[in-house]
Amino acid sequence: MTLPHAAVETPVFMPVGTVATVKAVPQHLLEEMDVRIILGNTYHLYLRPGHEAIRRMGGLHRFMSWERAILTDSGGFQVFSLSELRKVTEEGVQFRSHLDGGLHFFSPEHSMDVQIALGSDIAMAFDECTEYPAEYGRARASLDLTLRWAERSKRHFDEHKFERPWGDGFAGQAPSLFGIVQGGMYLDLRRESAERLVAMDFPGYAIGGLSVGEPRERTREVIAETLPLLPKDKPRYVMGVGYPDEIAEYARMGVDMMDCVLPTRAARHGLLFTSEGRLNIKNRKFAEDQGPPDPNCGCIVCQRYTRAYLRHLMAAQEPLSAVLNTLHNLAFYLETMRKVRAELGAVGVD
Amino acid sequence: MTLPHAAVETPVFMPVGTVATVKAVPQHLLEEMDVRIILGNTYHLYLRPGHEAIRRMGGLHRFMSWERAILTDSGGFQVFSLSELRKVTEEGVQFRSHLDGGLHFFSPEHSMDVQIALGSDIAMAFDECTEYPAEYGRARASLDLTLRWAERSKRHFDEHKFERPWGDGFAGQAPSLFGIVQGGMYLDLRRESAERLVAMDFPGYAIGGLSVGEPRERTREVIAETLPLLPKDKPRYVMGVGYPDEIAEYARMGVDMMDCVLPTRAARHGLLFTSEGRLNIKNRKFAEDQGPPDPNCGCIVCQRYTRAYLRHLMAAQEPLSAVLNTLHNLAFYLETMRKVRAELGAVGVD
Repeated sequence: MTLPHAAVETPVFMPVGTVATVKAVPQHLLEEMDVRIILGNTYHLYLRPGHEAIRRMGGLHRFMSWERAILTDSGGFQVFSLSELRKVTEEGVQFRSHLDGGLHFFSPEHSMDVQIALGSDIAMAFDECTEYPAEYGRARASLDLTLRWAERSKRHFDEHKFERPWGDGFAGQAPSLFGIVQGGMYLDLRRESAERLVAMDFPGYAIGGLSVGEPRERTREVIAETLPLLPKDKPRYVMGVGYPDEIAEYARMGVDMMDCVLPTRAARHGLLFTSEGRLNIKNRKFAEDQGPPDPNCGCIVCQRYTRAYLRHLMAAQEPLSAVLNTLHNLAFYLETMRKVRAELGAVGVD
Repeated sequence: MTLPHAAVETPVFMPVGTVATVKAVPQHLLEEMDVRIILGNTYHLYLRPGHEAIRRMGGLHRFMSWERAILTDSGGFQVFSLSELRKVTEEGVQFRSHLDGGLHFFSPEHSMDVQIALGSDIAMAFDECTEYPAEYGRARASLDLTLRWAERSKRHFDEHKFERPWGDGFAGQAPSLFGIVQGGMYLDLRRESAERLVAMDFPGYAIGGLSVGEPRERTREVIAETLPLLPKDKPRYVMGVGYPDEIAEYARMGVDMMDCVLPTRAARHGLLFTSEGRLNIKNRKFAEDQGPPDPNCGCIVCQRYTRAYLRHLMAAQEPLSAVLNTLHNLAFYLETMRKVRAELGAVGVD
């Protein structure tokens, strides 16, 4: 996948860089891990420091000193998480900031403006993320709204995409806009959503509305049903997944892109993913464990630090704890995808 | 200065690594900044994870994966900071842990045992850090106690120093024990303390009891009065100082070693030291300032990030804020000392 700011090998896992930082990790260490693309959250960046400020400073890449690729979400998912604070109409969503309670409004057009101002390589259509569980009628109405918003997103994006802050750099390229399949857990609605979205001809497609509390088997089922309806020659992105074995499984099913806060968030809570399973590094049994977090991992944390040391940092609530735990978890996720890529390359899939 | 774990160029500033971590900074980035020696706090390490646990794991160097030099303080300073929780007798100090209120006792002998178990390159004699202000009689009594404790520290240390956890490594070398000059702000007491301490023949000497709230001019005066009484051919260490201009001034006066939490602690509160003065990076005026923190600094933070970005990280309470601010402040302190070394070398002082 060739984007203005980077060539990205797929299937790829994208670390989440919520507010212009992958929490606790300096950018040069992401580069050393060969991260090529990260995700930024439009909702958070819109509120702080603000998309206009970021545009004035040359866009998100320059602001955070990350010259590789960035995908931004539409802001929809976060806005819909603020269930107490929002009001949805045909026009868009009114919501209150979680920071200061101030009133804001996102429409498909506004979400596009914000993402173009940020200067992401890949923007996402503004969608309504259907809650789980949802009645059939509710999922149907939500899907229809999302499709009308997809059209508005695309129209506005295509008109304004050359207003991206990187000017004539990157051979005059513009960012891309991906559409998002919704439909709750209803397979017929997912099919309909995929077909109508593909008819709009986006350069890439995402499957949204997953990881919202449904059983894992439903997630898999929706992906399995939807994926074959999305063009194989365009990137297919499943949003917000998952555990290491899940991302490997979905990648083998044909998913090209995934993102999830799990490796970074779990790290800050002391949960480490390893080739031998999950470690809760806070556990007392690691107090004098001189083995590395994962004996089969080549990351800079496993090459140098012990479980005992990582446990100590966590117990002492030291800021280095989040740094090292996150570095390991991200390395493990990236290595998981590297192995899947090697495996898919080897057997000649796609 | 050649220590078991490192050759250290002096004058040197030692970053403080309180509980086996220089707060927020991965060890490999300290190495990349050419840090050769850090300070560990005996009191904190004794409480958590415990010196016996650290000894069983091969000592502090191995525990924290820091194969360069470590100096440990005696625990005295921290214990005396717990003013409500401690009781001093001729034998030592009884105190309550700030973590769980548990009762503990430090004597000179016990402080030596702990420091030997940790395996530091340089241990410090157990002293009573005289509070400021202190009456003459109080400072005199405190100084006498400190000298009796220095003798006990030295006797016990010399008997047990080969029990350091690094075994026969490092060409069979043992750690060194430095004595500490006290005497409050009374110059005659400082002279007496220095002379009686030098008579005990330590391999290095520290000036303690400074940076306890006294005016800066008193600090300078005590250093100026005491330093000439300490042997020039042995390391002379001023504990717990200071601002960048102070450490440069003291180094020019002949001080070989200094440590201070200031660069690391101030960083976490958003105070950056630069060649153009101090920056409070939280200040709104930096919101869109695209200059580096310090235009004359070559550190990895100044080479890559803007004031606006550092301000944003602080405003968003992002963990990367502490990492980057600390990296810059430490780089600035190290560079300050590098310049003084070049200057002293150039004019052939000492």
